[in-house]
Amino acid sequence: MRNFKMQLKYDGSRYKGWQRLGGCENTIQSKIEAVLSKMLECPVEVTGSGRTDAGVHALCQIANFHAETDLSCEEILQYLRKYLPEDIGVVSVQEADPRFHSRLNAVKKIYRYRIWRSEEPCVFERKYVWTMTEPLDLAAMNEAARHLEGTHDFLSFCSNKHMKKSSVRRLDSIEIRQEGKELWLTFCGNGFLYHMVRILVGTLLAVGQGAMRPEQMTEIIEKRNREFAGVTVPAKGLCLMEVEY
Amino acid sequence: MRNFKMQLKYDGSRYKGWQRLGGCENTIQSKIEAVLSKMLECPVEVTGSGRTDAGVHALCQIANFHAETDLSCEEILQYLRKYLPEDIGVVSVQEADPRFHSRLNAVKKIYRYRIWRSEEPCVFERKYVWTMTEPLDLAAMNEAARHLEGTHDFLSFCSNKHMKKSSVRRLDSIEIRQEGKELWLTFCGNGFLYHMVRILVGTLLAVGQGAMRPEQMTEIIEKRNREFAGVTVPAKGLCLMEVEY
Repeated sequence: MRNFKMQLKYDGSRYKGWQRLGGCENTIQSKIEAVLSKMLECPVEVTGSGRTDAGVHALCQIANFHAETDLSCEEILQYLRKYLPEDIGVVSVQEADPRFHSRLNAVKKIYRYRIWRSEEPCVFERKYVWTMTEPLDLAAMNEAARHLEGTHDFLSFCSNKHMKKSSVRRLDSIEIRQEGKELWLTFCGNGFLYHMVRILVGTLLAVGQGAMRPEQMTEIIEKRNREFAGVTVPAKGLCLMEVEY
Repeated sequence: MRNFKMQLKYDGSRYKGWQRLGGCENTIQSKIEAVLSKMLECPVEVTGSGRTDAGVHALCQIANFHAETDLSCEEILQYLRKYLPEDIGVVSVQEADPRFHSRLNAVKKIYRYRIWRSEEPCVFERKYVWTMTEPLDLAAMNEAARHLEGTHDFLSFCSNKHMKKSSVRRLDSIEIRQEGKELWLTFCGNGFLYHMVRILVGTLLAVGQGAMRPEQMTEIIEKRNREFAGVTVPAKGLCLMEVEY
């Protein structure tokens, strides 16, 4: 069996997220598997570096699949480009080591959350940003970010109430940056729990609006309880930027 | 009667162009007029600097309307932002000289056509570019552009077969520029005929592909016959960038 590694980008607006769900064809994984299965005339299972939620985008998602085929990477690439919808783009297909696993081998991931900060409507990028124009104390948000960085049990920042595996993750950095009329919050870490980035953003915004204090972050982490963190911000502002192996 | 000048931006993908058409509500002008008429409780007519075709975008369109009202520009702006769909954005509303006419007073317009030049799918900007990956001779296209610039009768570059008014226009400049994975063709002039920019692009691409010679441009202009120019490229790559008064 050969092992193929794909680099993908997608506009998640129309999809119920990455992961194939029982009976639901409207996920990114399902769309790709359907095209590959048709091409290879047998069921193909695609593994992604991680699940992105409904409405979340990817500038770079990595996935792999095993297949018995004589087709070249270029032929597979062309076939995928021909049959995938225009909001799912395949950047490259490469042959990988047979043991390569896009989820288990990932050592670092970068996510970015884009907030549109202007009263002026965001027309062209409207599907990729979340609009929030209230004043924000960026210094306080940055202070809070320093408390969140590091290796912690992030259970308070996880929407999955039945989390059985470890919820300890290493959050390397949170960068908060003004970019034109947008505020970008960029998260780099070794892995993220269900809704973790969106809850981190909601919590940092609560600090920015004065509803929470930066020092409270340590307490929230210690509580290991979702109720103490901020709200889960909408999916559309979130994008998976990079996966490192 | 007060005269209000609006700066607008829109994603033209969903619309049948700028101009209100008998019975068709799905134009940008109709959408704006509907909101203003509701706000002012009387029919309002909006004049744009020019019509953009179905599927054409605007980063900056200027329009004006006359109304008897005590509302401030800020109140009108807020009302429009509240009720217009998210793909039509109002940047500003200002009170203008009573004689200001957004079409008749326009002295210069800038349009840009964006061509996606990579085999890699254009996922996020897909609605704003036209994909065309065949090799192009940019030097020849630039040479052709020099022949097209100037004041000419552009009837060969007009889709309206029953053009009764003058088809003489001053085309100040055509700039052809690589911008990342895109090729940008930017047209600056005192006015453009129906489909003129899209036919100019189609003709320049014919030169770029070797199907026409740069010197042929002068002949095409002289023919005053649409059949001699290149094809009309798709609307989605076109955007009205600026209107000067």
